Amino acid sequence: MTSTSQSQSPTDFLVITPADQELLFTAARTANSFSDEPVSDEQLYAITELVKWPPTMANTNPLRILFVRTQEGKDRLIPLMSEGNRAKTASAPVVAVLAADTDFHDKIPELFPMRPEMRESFVDDAEGRERQATFNGALQAGYFILGVRAAGLAAGPMLGFDAAGIDKEFFGDRAWKTILVVNIGKPGANPWFDRLPRLAHGDYVEYA
Amino acid sequence: MTSTSQSQSPTDFLVITPADQELLFTAARTANSFSDEPVSDEQLYAITELVKWPPTMANTNPLRILFVRTQEGKDRLIPLMSEGNRAKTASAPVVAVLAADTDFHDKIPELFPMRPEMRESFVDDAEGRERQATFNGALQAGYFILGVRAAGLAAGPMLGFDAAGIDKEFFGDRAWKTILVVNIGKPGANPWFDRLPRLAHGDYVEYA
Repeated sequence: MTSTSQSQSPTDFLVITPADQELLFTAARTANSFSDEPVSDEQLYAITELVKWPPTMANTNPLRILFVRTQEGKDRLIPLMSEGNRAKTASAPVVAVLAADTDFHDKIPELFPMRPEMRESFVDDAEGRERQATFNGALQAGYFILGVRAAGLAAGPMLGFDAAGIDKEFFGDRAWKTILVVNIGKPGANPWFDRLPRLAHGDYVEYA
Repeated sequence: MTSTSQSQSPTDFLVITPADQELLFTAARTANSFSDEPVSDEQLYAITELVKWPPTMANTNPLRILFVRTQEGKDRLIPLMSEGNRAKTASAPVVAVLAADTDFHDKIPELFPMRPEMRESFVDDAEGRERQATFNGALQAGYFILGVRAAGLAAGPMLGFDAAGIDKEFFGDRAWKTILVVNIGKPGANPWFDRLPRLAHGDYVEYA
C-alpha cells in the first residue's frame, strides 16, 4: 500500500513522536492555576540539564534561573508581580524567575575558549551587552518553556511584574535583569482559557 | 526491585522519549555545512504548524518567517550576510529569515479578541512595540529552532548579517525587522565544531 500526499498530514513530516509533539507544542497550554502536587528538585535539575544545550550567540548562555520554591521566597516575589498575576503565582508549587546576565561577557573565556578576546569587545558596550543578553536570554527562555513541558509539567509564563523590584530583591548588585517569570506545576482547577487563534499561514510565512 | 535515587539520571525525570530528548536538545548540534539533500515544502509547512502554538505575550505572535529556497533568493540574501556566514548560508538548501513585526499590534483584535482595545495602547509607543516584538519574536525563534530539529533537520542560527539591508531587500515598507537567520538542512561534511562547555549548575541556577 502506498501512501499518497492526499492522505498525509503535516505531522507525518516530523520525526519526534506524536505524543511528544502534543506534549511540547500542539496540545500543551499555558496554565493559569496549579494543583498541590509538588515539583521535585530532581525534576527541576532534569529541566535545566535538558535546556542548557540548545544554541546561543557564541555560546554565551546569558540566561540565569532562580527557582522560587519556599513560602518565604514566594512572599518576597508575589508583591512584585502585577496584581492579575498574583493568585496564579501563589498557586504554583515552583516559580522560575528567568533573568539575563548583562555581565555575560565575563564568562566568554570559559564558554568560547577559541576566542576569549571577544570579551573585551563588550566591556565598554553596555547597550550591546543588554541587547544581546536580552535577545539570547529570550531564545533560552523559549527552550526553557518547552523543557518544562518535556518534564510533564505545565508552564505559565508571565510578563507582568516589577522587573527592577525583583532584580533588587533577589539579585542584589549583580547584573541579572529579570526578563520572564514562569509558573511551574501540574494544572489545577479550570486551568486553561479557551484556545486562542493563530495567524493564517500566508499572513506570517513567505517564500523567496 | 526498587530503583534508588543513586541509579537515576536526570533523564528519568522527563516524560518525552530519550530519542526525542537527544533529537531536540542534548545531541542536536548547530550545523555549519549542509548536504545537497533537499528540504521539502511539506517539511517547512510541518515545522510552522508545529511551532505556531507555544505561548507569546497576549497571544501576539509577532514572529514572521521568510523561507529562502531559490537560487535567486539566495543571491539576494548572501551578500547581506557577514562574510564568515556566507559559505554556510550558500550550502543550506533552505534559509529562514526570522523577523519581528513591530506592527504586531494591528493583529491584536484578531489574535486576542477578548481585549481588542489593547491595540490602542501600542499605537503611540513605537519603543514598546519594538521591545515586545523583539522579545516575543526571540521566544518564538527558540521554539522555531527546536521545531526544525523536530523535523529531523539541522538548524544553523546566525546573528551576523546586515539587518537593515535584509529588511529593505525583502520586506519593503513593512515593519518586519530581521532578528535571526537560520540555515536548515541535513548536515554536510564536517558539519560540527567541537562541543563547547556549558556553565556549572551553580553558576546560573539559584533557589529561594
